[in-house]
Amino acid sequence: MGYSLAAGGKRLRPVLCLAGADAVGSDRELALPAACALELIHTYSLIHDDLPAMDNDSLRRGRPTLHVVAGDGLAILAGDGLLTEAFALLARAPAIADPGIVARKLRVIGLIADAAGAAGMVGGQAIDLACTTPDPSGRLAPPLDAEGVRAMHARKTGALIRASAVAGAIMGGAGETAIGHIDSAAAEFGLAFQIVDDILDVEGVSTLLGKTPGKDAAAGKPTYPALYGLPAARKMAAECLERAEHSLRTAGLADSWLMEIGRWAVNRSN
Amino acid sequence: MGYSLAAGGKRLRPVLCLAGADAVGSDRELALPAACALELIHTYSLIHDDLPAMDNDSLRRGRPTLHVVAGDGLAILAGDGLLTEAFALLARAPAIADPGIVARKLRVIGLIADAAGAAGMVGGQAIDLACTTPDPSGRLAPPLDAEGVRAMHARKTGALIRASAVAGAIMGGAGETAIGHIDSAAAEFGLAFQIVDDILDVEGVSTLLGKTPGKDAAAGKPTYPALYGLPAARKMAAECLERAEHSLRTAGLADSWLMEIGRWAVNRSN
Repeated sequence: MGYSLAAGGKRLRPVLCLAGADAVGSDRELALPAACALELIHTYSLIHDDLPAMDNDSLRRGRPTLHVVAGDGLAILAGDGLLTEAFALLARAPAIADPGIVARKLRVIGLIADAAGAAGMVGGQAIDLACTTPDPSGRLAPPLDAEGVRAMHARKTGALIRASAVAGAIMGGAGETAIGHIDSAAAEFGLAFQIVDDILDVEGVSTLLGKTPGKDAAAGKPTYPALYGLPAARKMAAECLERAEHSLRTAGLADSWLMEIGRWAVNRSN
Repeated sequence: MGYSLAAGGKRLRPVLCLAGADAVGSDRELALPAACALELIHTYSLIHDDLPAMDNDSLRRGRPTLHVVAGDGLAILAGDGLLTEAFALLARAPAIADPGIVARKLRVIGLIADAAGAAGMVGGQAIDLACTTPDPSGRLAPPLDAEGVRAMHARKTGALIRASAVAGAIMGGAGETAIGHIDSAAAEFGLAFQIVDDILDVEGVSTLLGKTPGKDAAAGKPTYPALYGLPAARKMAAECLERAEHSLRTAGLADSWLMEIGRWAVNRSN
């Protein structure tokens, strides 16, 4: 668990969570446990996705993947442990007995569990798996069309990114209108992030990425550059950013740190 | 997820949870979501434990294991989905906004997450794995002594069984003294249950058990009958039951349904 957590990574989800609290004028401390829990969940998902039974990747965050160093069994258990610890942390921290804070914590647990579960991240990964790995009878799901790819990513990576910003906003005591706009903006960030991930997978080099580039294309996974070409994919990411800015402006939050993070997600090179 | 849940099984954990609420005079309905969540978590743990990377078992609850019918990747994801759904359910149900009930729900989420996580079930399974499966460099942990076996089982199966009865008691509004005695009794039930499991693994037939008998002994796993012999192992299980009854009697709960379930756990034949 420590090996994979300490490998670093962008920490996008926790930073979005803290920025969500910050945007609505709250002390970030209130959102810190949720931020940590989101990183635990993201790290577990990487460990499980990298397993030979799934993406079979041997490099992650610039290090050998956990199953390479610890074996598949312990890697599965480390992922299970990280996922479970996330909920232990959410239940316990911040240790404030105020009924309003307790209600926020419970709402955030439900939000994050939905985003991480079968309706969200786990379901998206199952769709991805069905398209790339034959089942025991040798069947492979038909290739996804463009809408199918978008829907798969909305669950596989988008749901937890959305939940990250929203969890921060909820912990920070945001009103329902602000929560709605932050949710819309974070959904755009999530899509933009995935498009840029696909672009970097085509263009990137492994020393910068910390993972194996070109793997998705080699595995026959439909990527945004493959579906639309590189220039159109870049334009799509920029349009996501514009829509996100519009949502945040409507809520009076366009000058927030949240918007800066969205811009970074599109302009990053790793 | 549905395939493994619908396979049946003893439903010991949910029944203990409902009995925990019942014992303290509460409406069982309050504990029903926690009871369901505990079965989701137990089912996920069976799916992951049965994987080729762990126990490599092909029969469970009288059916082919999930990875045999769906592949390792989807089996890992189904387990992940069940674990996550358990916390979604605990956060959402019962949907009662009363601050007292909300506080109980949050406490139960923390309790169950601790019992299921690295300090509990996942950690116990990791110890078991280290003793039976060489790591990538070919190393195997030294065999456990009797105390090591007890400590491993206390985490691997005992922690969630304890948490089941205690979660029911908490949801039912039990006082701290009753919770303490129910916890002690359930710890004894958990140990007795494991001893009887080991005895049935030696004596059982697969049609009754719904899983492959003799596997633990064949895998060189230290079992209670192997450590102490069958008669002494049977005596140990009976002594657990006596200690549990003493704890429940102290709390005035010896005539509860909880005690009946403990007796069944020791006297069962599958």
